[in-house]
Amino acid sequence: MDQSFEAFRARRAAGNASVLATDNLAIKRFFALDKQVYVDGALPVKTKELLGLVASMVLRCNDCIDYHLERCVAEGTDKAELDEAVAVALMVGGSIVIPHARHAAASIEFLLGERRER
Amino acid sequence: MDQSFEAFRARRAAGNASVLATDNLAIKRFFALDKQVYVDGALPVKTKELLGLVASMVLRCNDCIDYHLERCVAEGTDKAELDEAVAVALMVGGSIVIPHARHAAASIEFLLGERRER
Amino acid sequence: MDQSFEAFRARRAAGNASVLATDNLAIKRFFALDKQVYVDGALPVKTKELLGLVASMVLRCNDCIDYHLERCVAEGTDKAELDEAVAVALMVGGSIVIPHARHAAASIEFLLGERRER
Amino acid sequence: MDQSFEAFRARRAAGNASVLATDNLAIKRFFALDKQVYVDGALPVKTKELLGLVASMVLRCNDCIDYHLERCVAEGTDKAELDEAVAVALMVGGSIVIPHARHAAASIEFLLGERRER
Amino acid sequence: MDQSFEAFRARRAAGNASVLATDNLAIKRFFALDKQVYVDGALPVKTKELLGLVASMVLRCNDCIDYHLERCVAEGTDKAELDEAVAVALMVGGSIVIPHARHAAASIEFLLGERRER
Amino acid sequence: MDQSFEAFRARRAAGNASVLATDNLAIKRFFALDKQVYVDGALPVKTKELLGLVASMVLRCNDCIDYHLERCVAEGTDKAELDEAVAVALMVGGSIVIPHARHAAASIEFLLGERRER
Repeated sequence: MDQSFEAFRARRAAGNASVLATDNLAIKRFFALDKQVYVDGALPVKTKELLGLVASMVLRCNDCIDYHLERCVAEGTDKAELDEAVAVALMVGGSIVIPHARHAAASIEFLLGERRER
Repeated sequence: MDQSFEAFRARRAAGNASVLATDNLAIKRFFALDKQVYVDGALPVKTKELLGLVASMVLRCNDCIDYHLERCVAEGTDKAELDEAVAVALMVGGSIVIPHARHAAASIEFLLGERRER
Repeated sequence: MDQSFEAFRARRAAGNASVLATDNLAIKRFFALDKQVYVDGALPVKTKELLGLVASMVLRCNDCIDYHLERCVAEGTDKAELDEAVAVALMVGGSIVIPHARHAAASIEFLLGERRER
Repeated sequence: MDQSFEAFRARRAAGNASVLATDNLAIKRFFALDKQVYVDGALPVKTKELLGLVASMVLRCNDCIDYHLERCVAEGTDKAELDEAVAVALMVGGSIVIPHARHAAASIEFLLGERRER
Repeated sequence: MDQSFEAFRARRAAGNASVLATDNLAIKRFFALDKQVYVDGALPVKTKELLGLVASMVLRCNDCIDYHLERCVAEGTDKAELDEAVAVALMVGGSIVIPHARHAAASIEFLLGERRER
Repeated sequence: MDQSFEAFRARRAAGNASVLATDNLAIKRFFALDKQVYVDGALPVKTKELLGLVASMVLRCNDCIDYHLERCVAEGTDKAELDEAVAVALMVGGSIVIPHARHAAASIEFLLGERRER
């Protein structure tokens, strides 16, 4: 499986389209609710995306980590902030999270580079 | 890693042979018991395989999902039934299960296509 | 904490009221969606509740197990069927599920007794 | 087990003393590092404690939830903010987190009441 | 729920009897296999029980921790050895394991005291 | 993603370098502590690495499994001992661990072959 960030984006888009090509209303509502939870509210979007990132790290899901990292970087989160979130995730989740910290480090490098180029 | 369903089948068969090439009796008995649990009983095989599928989804193991999806389709489970099982898995397990719902959608498409061709 | 089934029912009702005493729409929608997923559809309610039960067992949550056991028994599921679902959960989830199988056994005894008395 | 917040505080203090009554340096360093991760840095303490809270909710540990809730409230986090963090945790972690949302709701009520009285 | 070690022993014995009061062969075989895995072999029982202990800690199940601690102490494991196993569990599993390290510390104190008195 | 053991080694080395290219002290200390936990003490290194292996298997992380398998083989652990550790992991963690037992079987074959050639 191609682990590049661009490959993840294509895989995610195609996969979501495939899941949502269904008559099952509960699945569609679940995906819709998953968007609403991260909108601006009492907590800013940036904080909520960091919450999503750390939750994804301690539950150890690379695709979820990549999704929230992309959203964090879009919200202006910088390297030092992301590293502190990674540190919390490592501490809470333990060394079993280390491979995901390695995955996150590569994604962070890609995403911050992409932002600089814009 | 080749993520196609055929590649999974080959990888699984070779891997099981490798695990069972051992003198360790407990491992052999564990694999044998794993077969017995899904035989026809008070609950039909079809229901048991759906239980295995949802358990595999909330525990987030793609190889286990593929195995139970193959068994579900062999038992005649259709798209609407599989989608309802996926909906339960998403609800119980949360958005962290979404990447596995994407994986399952691709496998379901492959397996239902294969069944139609027979 | 009182582990009796009646105590669980009271604790659950009070707890849900406390969670839903909020202006947060996402939380309310999440609870509403959690109801919809288990309604009659391509799969009967009885099967869906068994899916919820096994998912709760492998994820090891006694309150969730008790909730789905109550629903399973209300749908007419009998002891042999529940035991087969427990067997699948033990097999998929491993011996770490055993304490929850012990908890489930006590709840099943209570719930089937209560049903007989009606 | 007494589930009141005061009982948790006493149990936690006694338990930590018992764990740290050891010559094992790694355990002592682990506990020390667990403090350092949440100090003020690129991210404010309040954000880090919210990260710890959501991580604890999706990993489903009531004692960890109570610890981070206490720290969140001490940092001035209000009910609406806590509810949004709970909503993220429910969404990412699924309905299996609901019993912990019930536990959190009771702890939040206690802690905000205690803060008002000061 | 009474958290003393004696209460755990009584609860476990009654619970196992309740689970095994079934005609379900798979459940009985699962429990039988769970015994065989820990017998003396290429690895001594003491090592296997430490494996069971650390697995139970990172999966965060107090009843499983107590069971394996009792077996470890019966095999002659001492405080320094148990603390090193706890340190591995904390490191791999993260701070979410801390409440279980607190639980283990109390159980270790009880079990070593009981052994001294014999 | 190339699943060969050599590819894992390269990926792990590069990934760790990338994670540690940070000013974040907590991350660096976390990695340092992760080394200290496995040094010789009351328990020999060989036993500690087996503990790390089983913890990695029940938490289902292939990169962590490969790391500890490499360390186990370096400490002289043989096939029968590794298989007994795998059996404990399967028993505690359930059939959801089977794909990781398949992964481990391939890694064990590679590592024992490599040791024989030295």
